[in-house]
Amino acid sequence: MTPKSMNADTVGRSARSSVMNFLNEIAQRHPGAISFASGRPAERFFRPEAWAPAEASFYAHYAQANGMSESAARHRLAQYGATAGIIREEIATQLRIDHGVPCTAERIVVTVGCQEAMALCILALCNARDRVLLVRNPTYIGATGVADAAGIRVVPVEPTADESLDQALARSVSELAREGLSPAAFYLIPDFDNPTGEVIAREDRERLLAQCAQHRIVVLEDNPYGMFRFEGETVPSMAQLDRHGGVIHLGTFSKTLFPSVRVGSAAFPETLFGDADAAVALRENVVERKSFLTVNTSQHCQALVGALLRHYGGSLADHVRAPIGFYRRNRDVAIESLTAGFRGFEDRVSWNQPAGGFFLSVRLPFEFDDNALDTCATRHGVLVMPMRYFAIDDGWRDTVRIAFSNLEPETIREGIARFCAYAVDRMRNPST
Amino acid sequence: MTPKSMNADTVGRSARSSVMNFLNEIAQRHPGAISFASGRPAERFFRPEAWAPAEASFYAHYAQANGMSESAARHRLAQYGATAGIIREEIATQLRIDHGVPCTAERIVVTVGCQEAMALCILALCNARDRVLLVRNPTYIGATGVADAAGIRVVPVEPTADESLDQALARSVSELAREGLSPAAFYLIPDFDNPTGEVIAREDRERLLAQCAQHRIVVLEDNPYGMFRFEGETVPSMAQLDRHGGVIHLGTFSKTLFPSVRVGSAAFPETLFGDADAAVALRENVVERKSFLTVNTSQHCQALVGALLRHYGGSLADHVRAPIGFYRRNRDVAIESLTAGFRGFEDRVSWNQPAGGFFLSVRLPFEFDDNALDTCATRHGVLVMPMRYFAIDDGWRDTVRIAFSNLEPETIREGIARFCAYAVDRMRNPST
Repeated sequence: MTPKSMNADTVGRSARSSVMNFLNEIAQRHPGAISFASGRPAERFFRPEAWAPAEASFYAHYAQANGMSESAARHRLAQYGATAGIIREEIATQLRIDHGVPCTAERIVVTVGCQEAMALCILALCNARDRVLLVRNPTYIGATGVADAAGIRVVPVEPTADESLDQALARSVSELAREGLSPAAFYLIPDFDNPTGEVIAREDRERLLAQCAQHRIVVLEDNPYGMFRFEGETVPSMAQLDRHGGVIHLGTFSKTLFPSVRVGSAAFPETLFGDADAAVALRENVVERKSFLTVNTSQHCQALVGALLRHYGGSLADHVRAPIGFYRRNRDVAIESLTAGFRGFEDRVSWNQPAGGFFLSVRLPFEFDDNALDTCATRHGVLVMPMRYFAIDDGWRDTVRIAFSNLEPETIREGIARFCAYAVDRMRNPST
Repeated sequence: MTPKSMNADTVGRSARSSVMNFLNEIAQRHPGAISFASGRPAERFFRPEAWAPAEASFYAHYAQANGMSESAARHRLAQYGATAGIIREEIATQLRIDHGVPCTAERIVVTVGCQEAMALCILALCNARDRVLLVRNPTYIGATGVADAAGIRVVPVEPTADESLDQALARSVSELAREGLSPAAFYLIPDFDNPTGEVIAREDRERLLAQCAQHRIVVLEDNPYGMFRFEGETVPSMAQLDRHGGVIHLGTFSKTLFPSVRVGSAAFPETLFGDADAAVALRENVVERKSFLTVNTSQHCQALVGALLRHYGGSLADHVRAPIGFYRRNRDVAIESLTAGFRGFEDRVSWNQPAGGFFLSVRLPFEFDDNALDTCATRHGVLVMPMRYFAIDDGWRDTVRIAFSNLEPETIREGIARFCAYAVDRMRNPST
C-alpha cells in the first residue's frame, strides 16, 4: 500500500482522527446500548475515599525529605514546579520493579497522561519533513492523531504472510529510503495491543530491536496494559531487552490507578544508540517542548500518584491483583459468549483469546461499516468498535474490537449475545 | 527589522526558548540570592487545607445534579471524561462576571493551564506555512515558544514613535502581504503585560479590534493578571469590546487560585468574524488537538476549581482582594526602593509604575547582558530578568523585568537596594 501523507490542514477530515468524536456521538444517541466500544479501566476498583489521605501523606513525606514544615511543603507544591516532574524517583522505581525498565530518576519525564509523553516524543523525533513515524496496522489512534495534527507522515509496517515483523520493518526502511524518507520512530504496544489484544513474542522483540538499532529508529514502547496479564509467562518489556539505547518506554497510571489523575511518563535510555549526550539532548528537547504545552504536570496529581506508589512499596502488582482477576473473568465470559453465539458459524467467524489486557478482536465474513454499527446500536442495543477506525490504510473492514474491561460479566454475556444475534442474522440474510 | 523564520529544527538553539532552562540554572547556582526573576503568585495566600473539603463538595454537587450517589459521582469523575471539560458552566460564569467576557458554557474549552489553551489556539490558527503569529515586542515566551517548536513564523508588531498599535499592525500586514504571508493570530496580554507591566488603553483596544477584524486576524487575549488591578479604572477586556467575533479569551487559575492545579481555559466567540459555523469548527479543531495532547484536563483538578468557583458564588473578586493589597504594597515598596537607590541617577535610569499585575520594568543606560546577570547574582546576591530574553529581535538589551509578586516587602527593599548598588557601581565605573 502507499503510505499516506497528511498535513496539518487535513486534520478533522481524516477518518481516523474523527473516531473519538464519532464514538461519543453514537454512544450519546444510544445511552441504553451495551457498549464494548471504550477501553476504560473498571471503575469498581477505584478507591476515591483513599485519595485525599494519600495525597496528605505525600506532603508529610516531602516536608521530611526537604526539612520543612508540612504546611510549607503544601504551599511549595501548590506553586509552579520542575517541568520534568517531582515523582521521578517513585516512577523509576515502579518501572524497574513492574516492567524491568532499567531506568533512573533523572531519565524520567513526568507527563499529563501517557498521551502527552507520546505526543512530545513523536514531535521531538519526527522533527523534519523526511522523518516519518512507523506504526503497526491497525494501531492506537492516539499515536496517529498526534502525527496527523503535526503533518508528520505515518507509515504502517505490515508483515506479509511470509514475513516476521523485523523483516517487514527492513522492507519498509528500504522502500522509504527510495523516496528519500527516513523513519525516526516506531510506535508499538507490545503487550496486549490496543486494538488487537496481541503480544509480540520475545524473539520478535529482540530481532526488532536489532533491526531498529541498525537504522537508528527509536522504539516508542507504549505499555498501558503490561501489568494486566491473565496467564502464561511475562515477556520482558522492550526497554528491558534493549541493548542498543533505542527504546523510550511510555507509561501511564490511568489503567493501574485511575484515568482522571492524568499522570504518565516517558523513560529515556541511558544512551541513544551508544551516544549518552544524544540521549540527554533528546530528553531535554522533550522537556522544553513540554514547558510550552503544559508547563509542568499538576503537582496536585503527582502528589497523589507519588503517595500511592510509596504506599504500595514501589510496585503496583498487589494493587492490580483484583482487577486482573476481574478482567480475566470478563475475557472468559466474552469468549464463552462468542463460542455460544457463533455456534454453527465457526468456519465463518473467528476471534483471538488475548492472554491479558482490555481488548479482543472478532473477524466477520462481511464488512462492518457505519450502517452495521448503527443497526447494532438501534435494533440490537449493542455497540462495538469497527477495527477500520484504527487502520492506517483502507483495510480491516471485516473486524471489530471488543473492549471487555469496564462491564460486569452478566452485561458482557448479554451484550455479546446481542452482537452475535446481529451477525448471525446478517450472515443468514446477507441482502438485508 | 526583519521578521524571523524558525523551523522545528532550531528549537533549543534559539535564545528565547532556552530562557526557562537558563533561569533555573542561574537560580540553582545562587539559591541564596533574592530573585525578582520569576512571576509567581504569592504562596502566602494559598489555602491548601481547604482544598480536599472543597473537592469533596464538588462531588456532592455533581451527584445531585446527575441524580446519582456521591460515591458513584466520585467513581464516574475518576474516569476519562469529556475532552472540553466538565466545569465549563462555572468557568463561563466567572469569565462573564470578572472579565465581562460574553461567553456561554458550550464555548469554553477547559485546558491544562493557560499554556495549553494558548498552544492549541496557535496551532489551530497558524496551520499553514503562510499563516504567521503576530506578537508584541517584547512578549511572553510561552507564546513564542509554542510557535518556535512548531515552526510557525513569529512577527512582532512594533509601533514607531509616531504610530499607534493598530497603525503598526496595518503596516505589518502590508509588509507580510508582499512576502505572501498572512497573519492568522495576534497574541496579546492587554492587562499588566508580561513582561512590561503595561495596559493597552480602551481606545487602542477598539482600534486594534477593528483593524484585526478587517484582516480576519484572531486576537488571542491572554489574561492572567486582569484581576490584579491596584488603582484606576478597569479597562474592558478585548473579548468584552469585541463586536466582530475576533477574540479568543485565554484564562488561567494559576494566579487567582494556585499554579499546581493546572487549569485554564479558552473562551471562543459566538461567530468567527460573523460566521457561526467557522467558530464551531475552530473550537472543535482545538478540542480534537487537545484529545491528542492531553486527552482531557484532570477531573481531579477540575473538581477542585469547580468547587472553589461555586464556593465564591462565581466571581473570584473577594478571593483576590487580599492578594491585590499585598501586590500593591510590593509594587509601592519596589518603586520607593528604586527611587531611593537611583537618587542622583534619575536622568539615566527609568522605570514604569504599573497599575496592577506582577511586573515592572527598569531601563538602564548600559547593556544588561549575561555578565551583568552573573555579577548581580555572584557579587550582589540579586537576580533580575534581562528583558532581551523576551525580545523577538535583538533589542531590549538595556532593560530588565522585576517581578514583585512573590516576595515579602522587606525582601523587595533589600533586593532592589542590591540591584541599585550594582547598577550605580556600573554607571560610576563603566569599564569594570
